[in-house]
Amino acid sequence: MIKITLPDGSVKEFAQGTTPMDVAKSISEGLARNVISASFNGTTVETATELTTDGSLILYTWNDKDGKKAFWHSTSHVMAQALEELFPGIKLTLGPAIDNGFYYDVDFVDQKITEADFKRIEDRVLEISRGKYEFKMRPVSKAEALDIYKDNEYKTELISNLEDGTITFCDHANFFDLCRGGHIPNTGIIKAMKIMSVAGAYWRGDEKNKQLTRVYGISFPKQKDLTDYLELLEEAKRRDHRKLGKELELFAFSQKVGQGLPLWLPKGAALRDRLEQFLKKAQKKAGYEQVVTPHIGQKELYVTSGHYEKYGADSFQPIHTPAEGEEFLLKPMNCPHHCEIFNVRPWSYKDLPKRYAEFGTVYRYEQSGELHGLTRVRGFTQDDAHIFCTPEQLDEEFKKVIDLVLYVFGSLGFENFTAQISLRDQENREKYIGSDENWEKAENAIINAAKDKGLNTVVEYGEAAFYGPKLDFMVKDALGRQWQLGTIQVDYNLPERFDLTYKGSDNELHRPVMIHRAPFGSMERFIAILLEHTAGNFPIWLMPEQAIILSLSEKYENYAKKVLDLLENHEIRALIDNRNETIGKKIREAEVQKYPFMLIVGEEEEKNGTISVRRHGQEGKGNISVTIEEFASIVNEEIKKTLKTFTV
Amino acid sequence: MIKITLPDGSVKEFAQGTTPMDVAKSISEGLARNVISASFNGTTVETATELTTDGSLILYTWNDKDGKKAFWHSTSHVMAQALEELFPGIKLTLGPAIDNGFYYDVDFVDQKITEADFKRIEDRVLEISRGKYEFKMRPVSKAEALDIYKDNEYKTELISNLEDGTITFCDHANFFDLCRGGHIPNTGIIKAMKIMSVAGAYWRGDEKNKQLTRVYGISFPKQKDLTDYLELLEEAKRRDHRKLGKELELFAFSQKVGQGLPLWLPKGAALRDRLEQFLKKAQKKAGYEQVVTPHIGQKELYVTSGHYEKYGADSFQPIHTPAEGEEFLLKPMNCPHHCEIFNVRPWSYKDLPKRYAEFGTVYRYEQSGELHGLTRVRGFTQDDAHIFCTPEQLDEEFKKVIDLVLYVFGSLGFENFTAQISLRDQENREKYIGSDENWEKAENAIINAAKDKGLNTVVEYGEAAFYGPKLDFMVKDALGRQWQLGTIQVDYNLPERFDLTYKGSDNELHRPVMIHRAPFGSMERFIAILLEHTAGNFPIWLMPEQAIILSLSEKYENYAKKVLDLLENHEIRALIDNRNETIGKKIREAEVQKYPFMLIVGEEEEKNGTISVRRHGQEGKGNISVTIEEFASIVNEEIKKTLKTFTV
Repeated sequence: MIKITLPDGSVKEFAQGTTPMDVAKSISEGLARNVISASFNGTTVETATELTTDGSLILYTWNDKDGKKAFWHSTSHVMAQALEELFPGIKLTLGPAIDNGFYYDVDFVDQKITEADFKRIEDRVLEISRGKYEFKMRPVSKAEALDIYKDNEYKTELISNLEDGTITFCDHANFFDLCRGGHIPNTGIIKAMKIMSVAGAYWRGDEKNKQLTRVYGISFPKQKDLTDYLELLEEAKRRDHRKLGKELELFAFSQKVGQGLPLWLPKGAALRDRLEQFLKKAQKKAGYEQVVTPHIGQKELYVTSGHYEKYGADSFQPIHTPAEGEEFLLKPMNCPHHCEIFNVRPWSYKDLPKRYAEFGTVYRYEQSGELHGLTRVRGFTQDDAHIFCTPEQLDEEFKKVIDLVLYVFGSLGFENFTAQISLRDQENREKYIGSDENWEKAENAIINAAKDKGLNTVVEYGEAAFYGPKLDFMVKDALGRQWQLGTIQVDYNLPERFDLTYKGSDNELHRPVMIHRAPFGSMERFIAILLEHTAGNFPIWLMPEQAIILSLSEKYENYAKKVLDLLENHEIRALIDNRNETIGKKIREAEVQKYPFMLIVGEEEEKNGTISVRRHGQEGKGNISVTIEEFASIVNEEIKKTLKTFTV
Repeated sequence: MIKITLPDGSVKEFAQGTTPMDVAKSISEGLARNVISASFNGTTVETATELTTDGSLILYTWNDKDGKKAFWHSTSHVMAQALEELFPGIKLTLGPAIDNGFYYDVDFVDQKITEADFKRIEDRVLEISRGKYEFKMRPVSKAEALDIYKDNEYKTELISNLEDGTITFCDHANFFDLCRGGHIPNTGIIKAMKIMSVAGAYWRGDEKNKQLTRVYGISFPKQKDLTDYLELLEEAKRRDHRKLGKELELFAFSQKVGQGLPLWLPKGAALRDRLEQFLKKAQKKAGYEQVVTPHIGQKELYVTSGHYEKYGADSFQPIHTPAEGEEFLLKPMNCPHHCEIFNVRPWSYKDLPKRYAEFGTVYRYEQSGELHGLTRVRGFTQDDAHIFCTPEQLDEEFKKVIDLVLYVFGSLGFENFTAQISLRDQENREKYIGSDENWEKAENAIINAAKDKGLNTVVEYGEAAFYGPKLDFMVKDALGRQWQLGTIQVDYNLPERFDLTYKGSDNELHRPVMIHRAPFGSMERFIAILLEHTAGNFPIWLMPEQAIILSLSEKYENYAKKVLDLLENHEIRALIDNRNETIGKKIREAEVQKYPFMLIVGEEEEKNGTISVRRHGQEGKGNISVTIEEFASIVNEEIKKTLKTFTV
């Protein structure tokens, strides 16, 4: 008999040779139907693998990341089989699962795959799948494996690097492939499959090697899942922040200025400014003080902070001066500068906490291939702040930061998030800087604060930075995609390196603790995600322009201006479209620009002192005719719904 | 007879050999008493020089810059004489006039001058001066000059570089010196003289040469002028922005971050932000749009703009990337980025003018010896904007910019200024870029706009930039010192280099004209000058904190907080000093921090719902007891006095 420990901590005894599927069956038939993959003692196994020792078993279904991985990896076997059938003589190389689906890199030799082939491949994959063929692992000797693949130089290369005894093939139907394992029980559960695209890819990612064809696919256990996924992709394309950013004239890139360096156009800069003012206002209430620091610092500053040693070689290289042999670096983060501000004068424990905030623009080198719109850039502005406090204040400060982050998310319509708590690796405590006592204090501070604030948390051991534990907010957007937004990190390292001190009540010098935090993360990335989350329909308080006044003709220019003035008195941001164009064209263009309200003014309105209000995205619905005062209350009511007042 | 043209254009005939002093006498005895120097046909002459040809004569008094120059240069002769008498065997080198006084570089050989010697040197200078010795120029042959100075290697070197026939000595009393000329009539008008300091200085500024002693002095025609000057220096020292910046905790420098790179502390950052918001608000009304651009740009951007060719070698050197062979530069100015923003989309003449504004932080390398507080830094934030308009709009736009600049100066208490109009050199028109017609238009636009706005102007021919004419505001501060603040420049060059276009009403593409403008100039320099101008007593609307609430004891903490809340409702920025200190100490510290109002709260005040108001700098005067509402009107009245509303 062997002892199997399940994730809930329960231990059950089974006969030696029991498979994960047997264990699932012993729990419930329902589970057995859904189990598609498993891991044993941390290693991926097949559901049919015979277990021979005691150990921990995790069973995965489609809803688990590991379940999907097995599902997609298995489908790539089936697709490879279909490709071999339809394109005889091709050479298979590698076919792993990826975040969304899988790919297979294929040398098509003298043949070519085009989009016109996708349908017949998909059909053949599903046809094979319906055969419910089991995936079965089989050990093969190195000699035999090399012999089998003697005409395939890619597999030969892979096998040559493996040791005899570790080489396995996976069989299903009449197909086999060199494979480490990790499959679903049989092909029958693959109910929907689509080839997404083909692209060139060098063998082993090295451009000196031959270029292969990478065939990307995805598969699902239900046809509806595929339909939903494709719809999501379409919607994501419509909401792509690069597309919306251009349409709404928010930002642009210039080849001359340089890739990854966004230029914020007037509307984008206004949006950014509004977000900054919103956070500044809340931060002021929360006792933060704004500071301003330069975008460069002497190399020595980063030698002191440790950043130079760690990142220097992969970063923008040092800036030299003409004569004096000085070396500066573009700042990759604001913390060293803020440490130097803390060091300007001595502090007493009575002065702490000091909370220095800065919308600090930092520069980090990214390879051009990694750049992506505003989510991966080379220069970005962090909504940064550093809190210097006593160890005793850490608990309270952490809670206050969480309050602020929750306020930010709430005001911007991100309601679905989890908080990931990253703690030390329990077994390797020596690799972390700072005393055990302080770590204990900090980890407890985070755990307690998260609990106290009712956060939905996930604890990850070993994910803490070497300088301290942290809490990251993982936010789901309107399309269900997960983003890391907002981080709070405890730091014992920089106070040490910058020799930061304060005089305690005991009249002795002590080290403050430092908290790094950024609710948005960066203005660039946050705005990109907000754009995709809201499809450009930002909360009305954030809209650079909340309304556009559309005059029926140039005759009503004066009345339009009067309306604009009145709106300004009500602190409503508006503009006038007074062009000599038809009202239909004006409305269509205003819809594209996503102004929340279109205010139409003509003879009737001028006579009655009213405006005809049309909401964005509500074509067909009748306009309502209201006075400016009535309109102002409509707008203010709507603002109140999202933008609460931050209280401390 | 010769014809002499005077500055007012009048021409008079004189006998050949007439001196400038004779001409002065022919005009009035009063003028003759005051004339101390002259220039003839653009060359400095003595007042006793015999004029032998027709020409233009300018007579200078102490009130002219050139008059002071002659006065101070002459005094340096007298000081050299005194030094030779008191330190026999020293070697004289060069002794020019400078902006404030003069210096003489002396090789003291084996002797040494200390502060203890200053008095007896000054006394001897005045003693010689009272002898009313005339300064007389005398030509000397090169051979003779070399012979006279055979023991002085410095003068020998100077003489060797001169041509025979151009060498002159200047005699007065029993002293002579190698000299080009430009003296006052006689030593008698030197009534006050002071040695300011001594410092080391390498012969000819080259550190490979011998170090000499530079003796700095200043002199005046009246004893009171010297007294006033020394008082001004004392006051300037008290108002030194570096000193006030530290006392008021506005900014700091860190050796680790790097010299010339200011760190803005919370109070300074708040002050800066207030200034920025103030200007942003006015700019918004004036139709500017804020943009945000990165602090670096590809080298190519500056090759296009021409900045790289012109300044590249003397600037911060290019930033390289680890892999891709890219080169970036820290941006020395924002204009190339704004040109690229203009180029993001096509424009019609109907869309113009576009006015892009950015508080853009730029970096320019300055040698460490040139750095000075916030007035000469390596990184600074310009209140920059670029207006892209049609040539027809230039006139109007220029006037609008002047309005904005005048609004800024008025709100900040700079009332004394002149506008310097820099136009083309009339004779060398070919060195300027842009058509003659456009230049004519632009120069007229500036001249008309300045006239229209009633500015006190000075026209300088040949001072225009090669790319366009400009208007600079020269402002006098409370100490009478002149600063250049605010600039408006027309640019025909960058629109050409960046190929900027708009479609005109003729449906053809045209080049826009560009205006660069910055009312403050830079935040750093402006705040430095404002600090020295106001001695830290900023206009109340600008004060980061307008009032400090001083509680008589901790017992009144709650009442103090209530007062703070009420003040916030009235939009008055205040803070509480609730420390357990005596009220006397709190007041003293608040005085140093220059809070405009100290609001004292104790039992009496809490009972009556009032505050006792004490103004900064008015010790001895009684406090007044008022309600919060009454106090709010006092503050608002005072704000209204300086901060007008900007109207367009």
